[in-house]
Amino acid sequence: MGNDATLRTVNVPVQSGQPEEASPHPLDVVGMGSSLVDVVSTVDDETIDRLGLERGTMMLVDLAVAEGIYAEMGPTVEVSGGSAANTVAGVAALGGAAAFVGKIAADPFGEVFAHDIRAAGVEFRAAVHDPGDAGEVLGTGRCLVLVTADADRTMATHLGAATTITPADVPLDLVERGRVLYLEGYLWDMDPAKQAMRRAIEVAHDHDGAVAFSLSDPFCVERHRREFLDLVAADVDVLFGNEEEMCRLFDVARLREALTSAEDLGILVAATRGPAGSIVLTGTGHTEIDAMPVDEVVDTTGAGDLYAAGFLYGLTHGLDPAACARLGSVCAAEVVSHLGARPQKDLVELARDAGLL
Amino acid sequence: MGNDATLRTVNVPVQSGQPEEASPHPLDVVGMGSSLVDVVSTVDDETIDRLGLERGTMMLVDLAVAEGIYAEMGPTVEVSGGSAANTVAGVAALGGAAAFVGKIAADPFGEVFAHDIRAAGVEFRAAVHDPGDAGEVLGTGRCLVLVTADADRTMATHLGAATTITPADVPLDLVERGRVLYLEGYLWDMDPAKQAMRRAIEVAHDHDGAVAFSLSDPFCVERHRREFLDLVAADVDVLFGNEEEMCRLFDVARLREALTSAEDLGILVAATRGPAGSIVLTGTGHTEIDAMPVDEVVDTTGAGDLYAAGFLYGLTHGLDPAACARLGSVCAAEVVSHLGARPQKDLVELARDAGLL
Repeated sequence: MGNDATLRTVNVPVQSGQPEEASPHPLDVVGMGSSLVDVVSTVDDETIDRLGLERGTMMLVDLAVAEGIYAEMGPTVEVSGGSAANTVAGVAALGGAAAFVGKIAADPFGEVFAHDIRAAGVEFRAAVHDPGDAGEVLGTGRCLVLVTADADRTMATHLGAATTITPADVPLDLVERGRVLYLEGYLWDMDPAKQAMRRAIEVAHDHDGAVAFSLSDPFCVERHRREFLDLVAADVDVLFGNEEEMCRLFDVARLREALTSAEDLGILVAATRGPAGSIVLTGTGHTEIDAMPVDEVVDTTGAGDLYAAGFLYGLTHGLDPAACARLGSVCAAEVVSHLGARPQKDLVELARDAGLL
Repeated sequence: MGNDATLRTVNVPVQSGQPEEASPHPLDVVGMGSSLVDVVSTVDDETIDRLGLERGTMMLVDLAVAEGIYAEMGPTVEVSGGSAANTVAGVAALGGAAAFVGKIAADPFGEVFAHDIRAAGVEFRAAVHDPGDAGEVLGTGRCLVLVTADADRTMATHLGAATTITPADVPLDLVERGRVLYLEGYLWDMDPAKQAMRRAIEVAHDHDGAVAFSLSDPFCVERHRREFLDLVAADVDVLFGNEEEMCRLFDVARLREALTSAEDLGILVAATRGPAGSIVLTGTGHTEIDAMPVDEVVDTTGAGDLYAAGFLYGLTHGLDPAACARLGSVCAAEVVSHLGARPQKDLVELARDAGLL
C-alpha cells in the first residue's frame, strides 16, 4: 500500500445488520497488546523524582527495577490493565463484539487478567507462557501506576510473560473475523512481538479489515520513530496518539504541524489533548472536539485507551469521525473519574445521555 | 484463669512514654489471622442467591467452589485484606506500632499481601508455605467479596496457604512484645492454626499482654460455640463481635441478653451494630456509642476490622472504653466509604477532627 498512501481512503467495515454468523467480520475490534495487571498507588511528587521516573510517561523496567519501585510504593490496588486490553474492554462495555490477543503466565495475576477481560465480555484465548525445561520463568506482566495528587499517572512496566508473544501465539482466525485490528505501540520493543503484530496486520488486510494503531507513549515513539512512520504510511488506517506523541512521530514542535504532515498520509487521525479534547483529521480536513466535563479527575490512567474504545465502536457502527471522537470523550471521561483503567459505569447509558447512541 | 474469670479486671498495658526500646511492650497490637487478598466485585442480589451464598456472611470454600464463584463475578479489583490484617493496618494508620502473624504462598498474591501490610507500616515476618516434595501446592489465600448495591458484602474465602499456619510459624518474640494480641475467629477452623493461636495466647499472657478476640462471623461462631465460650472465659480480655455473633455465642435472641451473659465474664466487650453504632460493656455497666455519619456507604467490608483498630489503638493509648468505641466508629466510617477493607484517608486527621486524638 506504500506508494498510493496519499490516495487511500479509510474504509472500515461497519455492522451490516445481517446475522453475526453470516458476517465475514463478526467482531468489531480485535485488540493486540500487553496483558498486564495494574498495581496502583497514590504517591507524592518527591517519590516520582526520587525514583528517577518522568511524570506522565511509561518506562519499561526489568524485574529488579520494578521491585525497587514497588518497595517505595504505599499500599496498592490491583486491577486488570494493558492499553489495548483496556480499549477492547471498553468496546465490549459499549455493546461491541471484541476479542483480545496477548500472553500471560500461569499465576494469580494471569488468572485475574483472563477473568476480568472475559467478565468484561471480551473473547480471549489466553496464550500462556511456558518456560520449558531451561527457560526463564516469567510472571504475568505488571504495570506499576503511580498516581499523583493531580490525577496524573507515571508508569513503570515489567512486561514479564507479555514480552514472549510470537507470531505462533496469534489466533489468526480471530484476527480474520475483526473489522478493526487494534495494536498498541508498547509491544514494538520486542522483536518476536513486532513480528507477531506484522503477521496480524497481513491477515487483517487480507481479509479486508482495517488496522488501527496507538502510539502509546512519547518514549515509545522516540525509540521507534522511523519504523512507526513506515508502519503508519504503509499499513495503518486509523492512528491514535496524544499531542506529544504526534509531535515526536512527525518530529515537529506543534500539533498543528504534525497534523499537516499526517494529512499527506490520507488516513484517519485522532489526536487527544487531555482536558482540551481531541482533534480528528479526515480526508476533508480536521475537526476539534471538546472533552466531556468531569466532576473530579481521580486517575487519568486509561483515558487514551477508552477514548480509542469509543472512537472504534463508533467507527464500526457507522458514526462519522466527529461523533466517533465525541463517543471517545464520553468513555475517557468515565475512566478518569475513578481509580483503574477499565470502565465501571454503564458506558451505553452515558453514550445515550450524550445523544450518541 | 478459668475459675476466677468473674473477678478478672481488664488490664491492658498502655504506652508509658518511655523510649520504645526500654518498654517491655514496644508493639501496641500484634494481629494474627488469615493472609488474604480480597477479590472484589459488585454483583446483583440474584447472583448471590444463584450461587447459594448467604448475604452478609463469610463462607469457607475449597478451590473448586472458589473458582466457580469467581467465574460468575464481573471484572474485579484486588486489594489486600484479611480481618486481623485489616485491623493492624488500621492501628498503624493511626500511628500505633503493629505487627502481623500469618502465612502466604510464594506467588504474586503473596507478594501483594506482604508489600501492602508493610507499606501500611506493619511489621510482618512472612511465614511462607512450602509444599515440600510431596505436599499440595497452595496459593496465597483469597477472599471473594461480592458487594451488592446496598453496600453489603457476602464473602467466599479460599484460605489456601493461610490454612497451613502452625505453632512453629508464630514468631514468639513478636508476640512477647505486644501490649495486645489480637486474634480472628476465622482461623479456628484448622486445628494447627488453632494450636498456633493457643501458643500465642500463652506467650502473650506470660508476658503480661492482653488478648483480644474477634468472633468474625455468625457461621464461625456456630461451628465453634462451645470452644469460643471456653476461650472467652479463660483467656480473652477484650471481645469483639456484631449483634448476631454475640447472640449466637451466648445462645440468646437479643443483644441485651447476650450482654447480660457477658457481664458475668468480667471482660471488656465491644458489640457492633452497623449504622446503629456499638455498645461497650465494662465492669461498671454498658455504654451506647453512635456510629459516625457517612455520606455514602460504598462497601461495608472491613467495617468491624477497622472498628477494632480504633478501639485497640485507643485502649493501648490510655483512652477510656467509650472513647475507644468512638475512635472505632471513626475508623469504620472511613473504610465503608470506599471499596476495599484498608483505610485510604488519614485516620489520624479524622480522629483529630472528631476530637479523639
